[in-house]
Amino acid sequence: MTSFTVTADDMDAIALGGAFLGTGGGGDPYIGKLMAKQVIAQHGPVKVITADELDDDALCIPVCMMGAPTVMVEKLPNGNEAREALAQLEAFLGRKADALICIEAGGLNSTIPYAVAAATGLPLIDGDGMGRAFPELQMVTMTIHGVSATPMVLADDKGNSSVINAISNKWTERLARCQTVEMGGAALVALYPMSGAEMKRGILHGSMSLIKAIGEIMTSERKAIRNPAEALMKRLDGKRLFTGRVVDIDRRTVGGFARGKAEFKGMDEDEGRSFTVEFQNEFLICRSEADELLAVTPDLICALDADGGMPVTTEQLRYGLAVTAIGLACDPQWWTPEGLELVGPRYFGYEHDYAPLHQMSR
Amino acid sequence: MTSFTVTADDMDAIALGGAFLGTGGGGDPYIGKLMAKQVIAQHGPVKVITADELDDDALCIPVCMMGAPTVMVEKLPNGNEAREALAQLEAFLGRKADALICIEAGGLNSTIPYAVAAATGLPLIDGDGMGRAFPELQMVTMTIHGVSATPMVLADDKGNSSVINAISNKWTERLARCQTVEMGGAALVALYPMSGAEMKRGILHGSMSLIKAIGEIMTSERKAIRNPAEALMKRLDGKRLFTGRVVDIDRRTVGGFARGKAEFKGMDEDEGRSFTVEFQNEFLICRSEADELLAVTPDLICALDADGGMPVTTEQLRYGLAVTAIGLACDPQWWTPEGLELVGPRYFGYEHDYAPLHQMSR
Repeated sequence: MTSFTVTADDMDAIALGGAFLGTGGGGDPYIGKLMAKQVIAQHGPVKVITADELDDDALCIPVCMMGAPTVMVEKLPNGNEAREALAQLEAFLGRKADALICIEAGGLNSTIPYAVAAATGLPLIDGDGMGRAFPELQMVTMTIHGVSATPMVLADDKGNSSVINAISNKWTERLARCQTVEMGGAALVALYPMSGAEMKRGILHGSMSLIKAIGEIMTSERKAIRNPAEALMKRLDGKRLFTGRVVDIDRRTVGGFARGKAEFKGMDEDEGRSFTVEFQNEFLICRSEADELLAVTPDLICALDADGGMPVTTEQLRYGLAVTAIGLACDPQWWTPEGLELVGPRYFGYEHDYAPLHQMSR
Repeated sequence: MTSFTVTADDMDAIALGGAFLGTGGGGDPYIGKLMAKQVIAQHGPVKVITADELDDDALCIPVCMMGAPTVMVEKLPNGNEAREALAQLEAFLGRKADALICIEAGGLNSTIPYAVAAATGLPLIDGDGMGRAFPELQMVTMTIHGVSATPMVLADDKGNSSVINAISNKWTERLARCQTVEMGGAALVALYPMSGAEMKRGILHGSMSLIKAIGEIMTSERKAIRNPAEALMKRLDGKRLFTGRVVDIDRRTVGGFARGKAEFKGMDEDEGRSFTVEFQNEFLICRSEADELLAVTPDLICALDADGGMPVTTEQLRYGLAVTAIGLACDPQWWTPEGLELVGPRYFGYEHDYAPLHQMSR
């Protein structure tokens, strides 16, 4: 891995790759892309550096949006809340950040930090806390490594803000989630302030390069009028879960999350079969008609439009849409007992133990 | 008005008077009394000063408990959260408080500040923001006078805390209430940091002297084996609303509040009649069997045990309890359009305009 520079043009690929790794959630990266493009055009490109380029005693801060992706689509950030959240956290800490990092490798939260990095001139670390997207803020590898999510700042579009100090990252999630709901379902936040040393131990490395590479594969495949599914599966050691059309979609915004279930009727080689995918912001579990498990969190369930080859988020699921679902193995840190306690199927209320994607029959 | 000193022994009268003016809410002052007695015994008495004794550029901070009184009875504060909330607000402001003040003249919140004052050695202002108790934090005369409730600090018994900065006092209520619910239904808070000048303009004066005087009347009447109702009505220009026994009580904790309705069967001179009182933490509206309005917020509805003469809080209401309900006129500031918008009957969802207590037939 080496450091690289991200221009406004690069944001197209990054938004595509982020939407794919966002596993259906994380919000539509289109908004974050527009924000980042505009700010980069104004302030110049963003430098993405590898974790080891940052000093051990430097200050690294993740900045992201928190809330239900369904809300984020209708309630656009005005672009200042993220910088406001960062500035307030810096003021609280009495120290300026030396680098920014994405909390997750997916959706809006892998594009918004580029806008903040461009505006502040800070470098962005090539890494993140999830290697995908997850719905709750304690669901990051930093939690496994004992990094506190607080002090954390939330800022909304109206000018409200708060600073949380909590005894655990799960408590931070509770106290921040309720305020996110009150703030209208979405807020911009700065949290997990880390030293360079904590960051190097705590994060997953290389996610920004990976997102860009995924986006570039998607772009070149689509230019060649090929669905990117095959090329992506090859590059990422992915597994085709199914191809099918949405026949039913049930979604609701509950407790600040977009929750729901989509049913698919198999098509092409899956003709005659049926599949369900359940989600809480992100796709969490994929089952076949016989209740056979095809993929389950923390492994990634990524969806592509079977016709156009574009990534599909949960809020884009609609009756009749043809989807190719692809499974990807998660980072091995999530396979540990600590990892599965944070993001395994039982945390989300499913009566399944985690079963690795590549050990499943299909 | 002159300044005075409050000893541990004085806390008995103050707790009684606070429970009476607490209009059924504000939590059982017994807990706050015990806390205050213990801290005063350890650190010495509390000096209560008149507002004009504080410099205009001094810093005055209200400290109180926020949440459902029903919860406070079961979840005792450990005594440090209030000081923690104050210390965090001071740290955030970069300045130490010069005086404390009660946010409301009722219940726990007119006793806890004595404990904090004794522990910190700070004087307590002879005044408050309500002249009674109200359920929501924007319901103070400081709101009418343009004082911001934020920065505000919340602290819980587990060690969690947060600092809120909001665009209005109503927004502060929303963002603080949801965290109070998450924190287990009650939190200790420091808010409305005010200059001496803002405090002098914004508060209601003399409430601490009044509470102590009410408590002393109650104590001396009860010593003389008289129900204090008559003496209190005389001293406070109060109006007897009814005497009756609880025949039905419906209560639930909703959205962090104790809400409910009590029905009473008239006794003595009210034999044959019936009455209802509705509450949200505090008693808000009192009606007779013919739906005739007897008293309505912001006027005070105070309840005394008809047998023992002790103040009755909503959580003490139980089948068969005999109660004398007394109406008191609120401070004239609450009669203004701004006042009624904050605490009038329509804010609480009642289809009544405010009608002053002394203009009603009974």
